[in-house]
Amino acid sequence: MKIITIGREFGSGGRELGSRLADALSIPCYDKQIITEVAKLHNIEEKQIEKITASDIRSIYASTIGGSFDLPFYYHHTPLNVIISQNEIIKNLASQGDCIIVGRCADVILKKYNPLNLFVYADKASKLKRCLERSENGESEKEILRQMKKIDKARASNYYHFSGNKWGQKESYHFCINTSKTEIKDLIPSVAELAKAWFK
Amino acid sequence: MKIITIGREFGSGGRELGSRLADALSIPCYDKQIITEVAKLHNIEEKQIEKITASDIRSIYASTIGGSFDLPFYYHHTPLNVIISQNEIIKNLASQGDCIIVGRCADVILKKYNPLNLFVYADKASKLKRCLERSENGESEKEILRQMKKIDKARASNYYHFSGNKWGQKESYHFCINTSKTEIKDLIPSVAELAKAWFK
Repeated sequence: MKIITIGREFGSGGRELGSRLADALSIPCYDKQIITEVAKLHNIEEKQIEKITASDIRSIYASTIGGSFDLPFYYHHTPLNVIISQNEIIKNLASQGDCIIVGRCADVILKKYNPLNLFVYADKASKLKRCLERSENGESEKEILRQMKKIDKARASNYYHFSGNKWGQKESYHFCINTSKTEIKDLIPSVAELAKAWFK
Repeated sequence: MKIITIGREFGSGGRELGSRLADALSIPCYDKQIITEVAKLHNIEEKQIEKITASDIRSIYASTIGGSFDLPFYYHHTPLNVIISQNEIIKNLASQGDCIIVGRCADVILKKYNPLNLFVYADKASKLKRCLERSENGESEKEILRQMKKIDKARASNYYHFSGNKWGQKESYHFCINTSKTEIKDLIPSVAELAKAWFK
């Protein structure tokens, strides 16, 4: 099985890299689709699921305490159960065949497949530029930077809770790709070659 | 000008990667040749130059204090002047055309060329394995690990003194390559593609 996972800093272009790499390798890339699946399973709006899965797991633990523990497990729609469902969906998707999974600690969850683990990062200025270009709600620079900090902090916390390792530390990945000074599309032939070498 | 610099952890295969990449791109790779040039210039044995350039610059500063400052600059063969010569030789080599330079803070020294800066790393077990395979003097595992720690500590210190940045921290490089689980030769097509994208 050829599984590629992509960890990424907020705004670094990790999602675009995953999507373009998937096209180059003719395999599916799962990103937002995972949210859709979890939302269906729990019958909760996608936006709500997105909010939960992007949250720091420490706040999720907190909101689970005092939850209704007299119901059977599968009836729970607590944030913690949403995360557990997300992990199951990731495992299920991976079991179906070669794929790319963006974020969501997939490198940890899918460790048994010996995935190729990439990490995409960039300097603050280029991440801000990318976010501003893609902003649909006209957020200010200040708002984007605040969001960037918050989301990456949550990712780091969650990664640590799942793996015991430091999120974004190069030792946790096979290739770390700085997108500050190149177009994502120009990086694809190189990363596709890497994937070929990894899975040969 | 196409300049590629390769920072590397001791035993990670950075030198091999540099050499093979140079073959793939048909450009020279400068590594030990820099030592030879410095040795010629200072009329000091290569082994001695190698020892100086692999030392922590803090110890070099210390050994310079109290040196003979009444001689003209170019007569000094103090460790600090050896380092200065090495930097000049690196600049001179780069000015002659496209090339790869392994180690020696070349990414910092050659910043004006906007080089592609790679960092090669690996886990301790695979670095130890590589060192044992290549050992000519039959060093023990313990000796190699001690050397590994000492040399990488000196590299980190020197990098910090030249750049103010943290050696091996992914933010200082464009691509970080973990060689723990792949043959260096298998990585070359990917890195060569990256170089093409970078310099297009």
